[in-house]
Amino acid sequence: MKIAVDAMGGDYAPEEIVKGALVGAREHDVELILVGQPQAIEAELAEAETRGIVFSLVEAPQVIGMEEHPAQAVRRKKGASIVVATRLVGEGAADAVVTMGHTGAAMIAALWVLGPIEGIRRATIGTPYLGIQEQTFILDGGANVDCKPDHLLQFALMGSLYAERMMGIKNPTVALLSNGAEEGKGGRAIIETFPLLAKSGLNFIGNMEGMDIPLGRANVVVTDGLVGNVVVKLTEGLTSRLLTVVEEELASILPSQALDSALRPTLAEIRKRYHYSRIGGMPLLGVNGVVVIGHGRSKAPAVVSAMGQAKRAVKGNLVEAIRTDLASLGAKAVAPTR
Amino acid sequence: MKIAVDAMGGDYAPEEIVKGALVGAREHDVELILVGQPQAIEAELAEAETRGIVFSLVEAPQVIGMEEHPAQAVRRKKGASIVVATRLVGEGAADAVVTMGHTGAAMIAALWVLGPIEGIRRATIGTPYLGIQEQTFILDGGANVDCKPDHLLQFALMGSLYAERMMGIKNPTVALLSNGAEEGKGGRAIIETFPLLAKSGLNFIGNMEGMDIPLGRANVVVTDGLVGNVVVKLTEGLTSRLLTVVEEELASILPSQALDSALRPTLAEIRKRYHYSRIGGMPLLGVNGVVVIGHGRSKAPAVVSAMGQAKRAVKGNLVEAIRTDLASLGAKAVAPTR
Repeated sequence: MKIAVDAMGGDYAPEEIVKGALVGAREHDVELILVGQPQAIEAELAEAETRGIVFSLVEAPQVIGMEEHPAQAVRRKKGASIVVATRLVGEGAADAVVTMGHTGAAMIAALWVLGPIEGIRRATIGTPYLGIQEQTFILDGGANVDCKPDHLLQFALMGSLYAERMMGIKNPTVALLSNGAEEGKGGRAIIETFPLLAKSGLNFIGNMEGMDIPLGRANVVVTDGLVGNVVVKLTEGLTSRLLTVVEEELASILPSQALDSALRPTLAEIRKRYHYSRIGGMPLLGVNGVVVIGHGRSKAPAVVSAMGQAKRAVKGNLVEAIRTDLASLGAKAVAPTR
Repeated sequence: MKIAVDAMGGDYAPEEIVKGALVGAREHDVELILVGQPQAIEAELAEAETRGIVFSLVEAPQVIGMEEHPAQAVRRKKGASIVVATRLVGEGAADAVVTMGHTGAAMIAALWVLGPIEGIRRATIGTPYLGIQEQTFILDGGANVDCKPDHLLQFALMGSLYAERMMGIKNPTVALLSNGAEEGKGGRAIIETFPLLAKSGLNFIGNMEGMDIPLGRANVVVTDGLVGNVVVKLTEGLTSRLLTVVEEELASILPSQALDSALRPTLAEIRKRYHYSRIGGMPLLGVNGVVVIGHGRSKAPAVVSAMGQAKRAVKGNLVEAIRTDLASLGAKAVAPTR
């Protein structure tokens, strides 16, 4: 298996990306293709231990910055590392691409170079509800807003397949995130999606509320990208804030020995467990190929785990599964097209 | 000042409601009107200490249950306690009404009996972001979904006045909750609301993200009721879950003496501080009168604090302020009507 890594994408590129990619290639036992500016990559390689790693370098002269307009940048920069890396997948020269660069640009490159799976109306990125409920996957995570019922239905299908093939959950439960548990609660899109999910053949358990997420009431939480993004970021911010409050208040009353030996290491460990950096990267669901996109702030360990995600998606035939199930879903639930 | 309390509304009515209403009348030094079934109320009064409290009883033969369809119930049950209590405000016999009953029914009764303030397109209920940021107020809290730009603009105005008059914050900052900080992020409603807020004369600071809420980046967080509801309930669930994790993990390593003297009481105190029951009740914003609605699970202390909210809203002329500012807002920002 060959994984193309966008060596130039992300806040810590190329240093941390190349470092992580080499570790990832060794750890996951895959062939590595580093894509980017040769001098920059070679400078990193010169300092690295590469024995036993099968890797090659593909030149990409341009880089897309984090603040660029995604569609414009991809259109103008045909030689950008993310575009070249995605093309390798399109041509069959690589089995997957991993990037920590501009999320929007990576999505657009995937949609233009690989194309959406036939019938897919919007590609989506989800996120596991890390630390709190490792068996919960939320999508959309922020890529798509103003979602219509047929988008949400397809998210549910793709999330369900992700939970099954990537998280190893059998017959995953699927819920719609709403402002009330009963059918009929929610905005128009949710209300109209409910009956579509009910006859979709997925293991749909109905609506769920915000408090149900940390309780792990469903494996797949389906929601608009605006809400999904707020959920993920609020969880991040609140967790951090709450652990700080606990630490400060206990620090003033616990004996100092207990602080250093118990309180601080325990809270640091919990903080780490709940930190988004553990996610590494997430596959873009709904395109004709495996594209794993990580956080711009990613360092080497995130690249390693993103490569693991890519390998699992390839081995689990995630793309093919979405293609097949989408066709059979079409027969069960006819979503209104708009 | 006279406050009408719906003695029959809520999971613990009439017992906890009457008990709380009497304490509230004494604590806030207001006249109390108990509205409901006379025998039920009198049975509670018989066991209570009522010396020094000025109170009266107004009969309402019917009760609206928590599972009833709000509009149908209000239409059919003219003699329901919440309808009769709201009518007292409409007739000038009471200055405010407090209820722990069916939120939807209370809203409909307020809209039908008191009517919306002229120009208000949707009445709204907000919620303080309790415990984490006492200076943050989120609205809509779940009453209104599929909000349009003109709704969100009016929520911002009402939230700003609430923060000023009820929370004592001078020139409160207002932000739109979105999936990105920059202008242009968000769904269509948010993108279109941004320029309206920018020229509204309110202290608008732009978009904010989920992680900014627990950091207290804005005093007034404007959002659709679906998102607001998810934020509030996720915060509730995650706080509870996280404190449990901390307690369990520290319990296994701290010396047992530290557990009982420090860990457990501290976490219990934090839990209490973050608990929704502290809110008591929130005024329905945008109707011609003060209507404070609490959680159905409320017990006596929540009734006491809801009565405090009602008194502050009456004294702060909240309704009149909304009426006046709405008129001047109209001159500044012309919202598209749909």
